Amino acid sequence: MTYCLAIKVDEGLVFAADSRTNAGVDYVSTYRKIFVFGVPGDRLIVLLASGNLATTQAVINAIQRDLDDASAPESLNTFHYLFDAAHYVGQISRRIQTEFAPSLKEDGISAEASFILGGQIHGRDPNIYLIYPQGNYISTSSETPYLQIGETKYGKPILDRIIRSETSLEDAARCALVSIDSTMRANISVGPPIELAFYRHDELALTRRTTLDYSTPMLRHLQKRWNEGLRRAFEKLPRFDWER
Amino acid sequence: MTYCLAIKVDEGLVFAADSRTNAGVDYVSTYRKIFVFGVPGDRLIVLLASGNLATTQAVINAIQRDLDDASAPESLNTFHYLFDAAHYVGQISRRIQTEFAPSLKEDGISAEASFILGGQIHGRDPNIYLIYPQGNYISTSSETPYLQIGETKYGKPILDRIIRSETSLEDAARCALVSIDSTMRANISVGPPIELAFYRHDELALTRRTTLDYSTPMLRHLQKRWNEGLRRAFEKLPRFDWER
Repeated sequence: MTYCLAIKVDEGLVFAADSRTNAGVDYVSTYRKIFVFGVPGDRLIVLLASGNLATTQAVINAIQRDLDDASAPESLNTFHYLFDAAHYVGQISRRIQTEFAPSLKEDGISAEASFILGGQIHGRDPNIYLIYPQGNYISTSSETPYLQIGETKYGKPILDRIIRSETSLEDAARCALVSIDSTMRANISVGPPIELAFYRHDELALTRRTTLDYSTPMLRHLQKRWNEGLRRAFEKLPRFDWER
Repeated sequence: MTYCLAIKVDEGLVFAADSRTNAGVDYVSTYRKIFVFGVPGDRLIVLLASGNLATTQAVINAIQRDLDDASAPESLNTFHYLFDAAHYVGQISRRIQTEFAPSLKEDGISAEASFILGGQIHGRDPNIYLIYPQGNYISTSSETPYLQIGETKYGKPILDRIIRSETSLEDAARCALVSIDSTMRANISVGPPIELAFYRHDELALTRRTTLDYSTPMLRHLQKRWNEGLRRAFEKLPRFDWER
């Protein structure tokens, strides 16, 4: 499993992902799940990947080959709209799934993969898209300014409580860390290190990228303070009538 | 969907459930999901139900019929062990699912149901069991002193952080309320009122039962304080290096 999310606030975009990949429970490894593309000053496109690792790797390879091939009819660098880029990634994903699905199905394995694509193209607004295994895609709304793929449920409640469009980029990233930390505690197939990528609107290049492990003081302190804060919040909950 | 949970602490047992039932998104109703059986002084058995409503109702009806029929070979009042009661409920559930599954399957509907059975039989230790749709069942461990059925993921992180065997019965119930409240915010198919049942060890009868709605001050205050407490905890999280 995997847990990736992207958050869109007024200041910009935050991308976050765990790094655990597993084929069953007895083959667990660490893979980066955040991929950065683009041309500084013209466009930044970030891709987050979840699902069958062979599928997601093949999709990234196909994207890179089109970028390397000047004669390719289209690539992440040719689109004028981000949703066209989302459509393109969805089509590649479908093509690869269709090739391998029949043989995988025989062994009860899913070829499916989901992606989050986000960024900004010069002259357009920044945005993020969730690309389903079926190739179709959705964007955020002002009420739900984030998208998730993979093991999404454990980490959702805190996002709903904290994230608003006016939330700062760093607060959004802290909330993503709490969301991933809650998920890592509940599901062993989601694990460190946590990758974070920051994009500030109109910079048209990645603003900042960082990786946090259990040995990183920021992550250790955040886990400790969050745990203490939750316990303090819990202790302040009201008593039942009969306890008074 | 549904969300039910039971918690086992040193002081006793807590049972909690939402009350929303839906057939698709356009037929939503309110049903009680906590059922109490037993003979005061001899045994208390509480059942929580999740899944196909026709299945869970038929299981409860069959249990009640056996209780009413003095000539029934077995009933919830005849077992010497709680796990035998769990086995009995699992068998009834299998029988009912087997009867209706073929016709339901034609329409793409699942006949499945899950149950939590908990309580105490005179002379034995109290316990709780999760009964799977397949009829088999598991109990808690000292490391995981709670069981959940239905929409379990949103509300799991807070249980893992708070619940220990030394947690008081009322704190366990408060934690169950927070867990259900987080789930209600994330999934509209889980909804109020919230039912709570308390059992103090060796009382061999239900200690207390209460129902909380959005109009109940306890639930309103708990939601408000928890939200405030979470925001305070969030504000105290450490800064990234570059924010200093």
